[in-house]
Amino acid sequence: MKNKIPPKAYLFPMPLGLIGANVNGKPNFETLAYVGIVEAQPPLISIASYETHYTNIGIKENGTFSVNTPSEDLAEKIDYVGIVSGKEIDKSEVFEVFYGDLKTAPMASLSPLNLECEVIKTIKVKELVDVEKGHEIFIGKIVNAYADEKYLTEGIPDIAKLNTFTYSRNNYWKVGEKFASAFEIGKKYIKE
Amino acid sequence: MKNKIPPKAYLFPMPLGLIGANVNGKPNFETLAYVGIVEAQPPLISIASYETHYTNIGIKENGTFSVNTPSEDLAEKIDYVGIVSGKEIDKSEVFEVFYGDLKTAPMASLSPLNLECEVIKTIKVKELVDVEKGHEIFIGKIVNAYADEKYLTEGIPDIAKLNTFTYSRNNYWKVGEKFASAFEIGKKYIKE
Repeated sequence: MKNKIPPKAYLFPMPLGLIGANVNGKPNFETLAYVGIVEAQPPLISIASYETHYTNIGIKENGTFSVNTPSEDLAEKIDYVGIVSGKEIDKSEVFEVFYGDLKTAPMASLSPLNLECEVIKTIKVKELVDVEKGHEIFIGKIVNAYADEKYLTEGIPDIAKLNTFTYSRNNYWKVGEKFASAFEIGKKYIKE
Repeated sequence: MKNKIPPKAYLFPMPLGLIGANVNGKPNFETLAYVGIVEAQPPLISIASYETHYTNIGIKENGTFSVNTPSEDLAEKIDYVGIVSGKEIDKSEVFEVFYGDLKTAPMASLSPLNLECEVIKTIKVKELVDVEKGHEIFIGKIVNAYADEKYLTEGIPDIAKLNTFTYSRNNYWKVGEKFASAFEIGKKYIKE
């Protein structure tokens, strides 16, 4: 029998998203690890942000948000917007910002990949489980994606070029090297 | 203005979960990249699996599933169960399996971390957007977690010990080295 440990919200490796939203007409950013893809076509991404967060106000007001891929050169700023709340500190000047077709989802120009998202569904965790407060899950349709040519290989963002990182246990970790081909190394178990 | 690229389901780095479910009383596994945490307390994890997948039958039948953290030594088998469907191939013998309190969520003994989950909410993507078929999003409460002592530091799974990996663009990538402290490097921007 395996060793039981206290059940917690473990995921390895954990993605990290720099989330942008306009709050009271000004860009605001927060950093979330609770980010995940839920559909390929149309592309849908889910983010979960604690209901008291300042960013949530803007997401609900505009029905839009952005997910900006973290890169190492932005790590200090990405960490900063995860530490301080927009309720107390104006974070509108932390990142150079641009807007896309949705007009209200601020994106960080220097992030290697920006996803511009329109909320299609909101789920409040407190309506699923017995908690007084909880995260709000926003499922967004990725309506546009932006990435400079230098981050692409054959037109697709290339993890080897993004210089992105993962979060775990109060630390940031680099992405390492490629070690195997997916949909390939498992073929050895296929019996003809 | 930044360079637009076709909007797709991009996430960097992408987590990977080996998902276990009993189907018709036998353990079955599939590999998913559409995995994400959505709540800390109680710990909730979301997985999205295409509705035609064999695994979905079992998750809906039992209301349980497992998320097993991938490790490099299991990469070939993890790849294999992502290639072949349980509809055609019996995958019950691929992994050595154990069960926990829920009795119906098979877990891979050799995976460094196993999360035993109870479904608390199911969302069908085809009810959110205009598609004929789509993913089913299962939000699971993590009722138990299992990890051998060698993967822990101070009782908590340690990414430096898990030997886990990420998926991107038909390849598997190692987790790299720690390069910065979260909730720390951003403090330089805090004005006293």
